[in-house]
Amino acid sequence: MTELGDALRLEQSGTGWAGELSDDWAIGEAVNGGLLMSLATTATARSSESAGGHRDPLSFSGVFLSPGTAGPVLVEPQILRSGRSMTTAQVTVSQDVDGRSVERSRALVTLGDLDRYAEPVLKTVAAPDIPPPDKCLSASDAPPSTLTKSGFLQRFDARMDPATIGWAVGEPSGEGEMRGWLRLADEAPIDAIGLLLVLDAFPPVSFDLGSSGWVPTVEFTGYVRGIPAPGWLQLRLHTTHVAGGLLNEDCEVWDSTGRLVAHSRQLASARFPASLD
Amino acid sequence: MTELGDALRLEQSGTGWAGELSDDWAIGEAVNGGLLMSLATTATARSSESAGGHRDPLSFSGVFLSPGTAGPVLVEPQILRSGRSMTTAQVTVSQDVDGRSVERSRALVTLGDLDRYAEPVLKTVAAPDIPPPDKCLSASDAPPSTLTKSGFLQRFDARMDPATIGWAVGEPSGEGEMRGWLRLADEAPIDAIGLLLVLDAFPPVSFDLGSSGWVPTVEFTGYVRGIPAPGWLQLRLHTTHVAGGLLNEDCEVWDSTGRLVAHSRQLASARFPASLD
Repeated sequence: MTELGDALRLEQSGTGWAGELSDDWAIGEAVNGGLLMSLATTATARSSESAGGHRDPLSFSGVFLSPGTAGPVLVEPQILRSGRSMTTAQVTVSQDVDGRSVERSRALVTLGDLDRYAEPVLKTVAAPDIPPPDKCLSASDAPPSTLTKSGFLQRFDARMDPATIGWAVGEPSGEGEMRGWLRLADEAPIDAIGLLLVLDAFPPVSFDLGSSGWVPTVEFTGYVRGIPAPGWLQLRLHTTHVAGGLLNEDCEVWDSTGRLVAHSRQLASARFPASLD
Repeated sequence: MTELGDALRLEQSGTGWAGELSDDWAIGEAVNGGLLMSLATTATARSSESAGGHRDPLSFSGVFLSPGTAGPVLVEPQILRSGRSMTTAQVTVSQDVDGRSVERSRALVTLGDLDRYAEPVLKTVAAPDIPPPDKCLSASDAPPSTLTKSGFLQRFDARMDPATIGWAVGEPSGEGEMRGWLRLADEAPIDAIGLLLVLDAFPPVSFDLGSSGWVPTVEFTGYVRGIPAPGWLQLRLHTTHVAGGLLNEDCEVWDSTGRLVAHSRQLASARFPASLD
């Protein structure tokens, strides 16, 4: 069993799916939202498949209502529409807190058949030209404060383009862009559902604008556009509009063949140093 | 009463809000999805406000389950979380069909206080430099087939940049970009909730790639980033990845002061002529 496979293990439980959240995927006390997204989508795909529906993720839109913590978790998908080419569902992730069910996230998920949308490619955006992984900087070069109690960072082998890592030594570029490579630390292959985790796995792009604190997600929407080939994934994060402490963080992911396989946008809030005001 | 104000009129009905969809906002038989988004958000904001929560839209993520048609409509918001700075809700839009409630759309909506997020602007994207409205082409220059039974197009005064309107005379640029100006035909002011309608009001960007048919939305997410100043809104639509008949359509909206006030991305499916394959 791979580390990610283990984290996404679910057992049918009534109309939902029961799993276990682990500190291995937490930053501080909170289990990473990307892991919740992959977990929610895994459950939705299994409910859909068992009803004869589709199983590849096409879109995921979610809100995060409270931080997930280590312990049992219940994922409850509800199929809203099952059509010829797509299945649409809502899914909730909740945990029991002192005998009360507390919702962690709610999302709308669309499933389909990704093979069907592979060709022809009429337009795309090429991966930026960045140094190869062995010429990039590993996450272990990140400031110690970031690594404190972060099981999450240890699950990945992340390599940042040196041109976009100035923030780690107190010199953010101010561009609001981050580029690099990513794979799982145990080098397990990443499938279409795993891409949702990947879309939220890099440090927040607000770090490159001088922010250093936690960046709560207001809303996250990711589209999976292809099944990734094995090997390194290349990521680019950037923001286009940062105002009053709210910013969009856009992420693009290319596989090792250079194909765009996923992209996302999230609205997030961040605190910025007064010097940038 | 303005045309849009009339279309968004809602009366409390049980735990929800009752309204009326009109062919005036339809393209063919289907009421425009953007109108459903503005209607759903209006109801959500009113439910939130009456519970002491927030009322400005920050994010809207929705799926469209069946086409809305002229007639009574029920909008049912459910507040999921009400925090100090934001209120998060789910909202469904449904219509009665032969005595059965049929869901038209389901969405996740985040509300807040837009004034709070106005300043400082640390990064933004400027509106493209395009000819003024009176040097652009009006929607009445669109091919007659597009106008057939479209009350929707008559609700707007849309002016397209001549550089991105080749598709209207059978010469799509192939760039996948569209730019222009928009206001309501009755020149009523557009508020923050009205921006959701605006984000989906231009012709589909797939037209600029040679597609001419209907472009069903798989998922739509819009972020409202500011309250628009009165006057013309400027829009830019573009796509970054078009594969196997699925494309993302990104829209940005600037107000008459040049401020970015909203942006969105939708995943949509379109048919493309074989010559582009």
